[in-house]
Amino acid sequence: MSNCVFCRIVAGEVSSYKIYEDDSVLAFLDINPTTKGHTIVIPKKHYLDLPAAEETDLAAVLAVIKKIAPAVVAGSQAEGFNLGVNNGAVAGQVIEHLHFHLIPRKKNDGLTNWPSKVYQPEEIAQYQEKIKQALVK
Amino acid sequence: MSNCVFCRIVAGEVSSYKIYEDDSVLAFLDINPTTKGHTIVIPKKHYLDLPAAEETDLAAVLAVIKKIAPAVVAGSQAEGFNLGVNNGAVAGQVIEHLHFHLIPRKKNDGLTNWPSKVYQPEEIAQYQEKIKQALVK
Repeated sequence: MSNCVFCRIVAGEVSSYKIYEDDSVLAFLDINPTTKGHTIVIPKKHYLDLPAAEETDLAAVLAVIKKIAPAVVAGSQAEGFNLGVNNGAVAGQVIEHLHFHLIPRKKNDGLTNWPSKVYQPEEIAQYQEKIKQALVK
Repeated sequence: MSNCVFCRIVAGEVSSYKIYEDDSVLAFLDINPTTKGHTIVIPKKHYLDLPAAEETDLAAVLAVIKKIAPAVVAGSQAEGFNLGVNNGAVAGQVIEHLHFHLIPRKKNDGLTNWPSKVYQPEEIAQYQEKIKQALVK
């Protein structure tokens, strides 16, 4: 038996409030929601995180998100949504099985997006260069 | 000339700090970053938002994110990342051209993930039912 709770949900060993399921993707309600209607969308195949996932599974997950997001919004009487992936413990990832958060949003729901920082002169070009160097390695 | 600033960046009419480009996807640094190294990834084709996008373009964008995210993290001396889409003004969408935020994260960077809410008894099953009803419409 897997130690991964999302693999156990996929296998039916742990119950969930399913919204959508097909051969490769499962969507179910988060029982500790950021807003009510908060939905988790996962590839059924176990991947630690996004960079570890195969492109075909990422494509399948996004196709499902495109399909179900308007229903998650409408069914939650919301007006928009945030889609998010927390990749790595430092980013808030708790379950080590790639998952996308689909969070319905309404006016005056009390959530605020993160603030912006400011680059020093030349600093943005330095970041660009470092990232491009890391990309070709 | 397009009124969309991201279309103008794609067309080369507005300059940007590009990280990656191919036939259908462009990635460039956000000039008002949540954290330094914050990268915007877009389909070159103009779509208002995620549900409006074609599956092939969503797949192409996610394949690029899978490819570049480790370099964005490494080049920013970070340890993880948040991926996010703000879909609709209520969710914080400002530019009306679908875009994915790739935000490098480090320990003690001052950012905190949103808190959780609690469902009342039976309420989660009611949300499940409303969303499933909206999905079949």
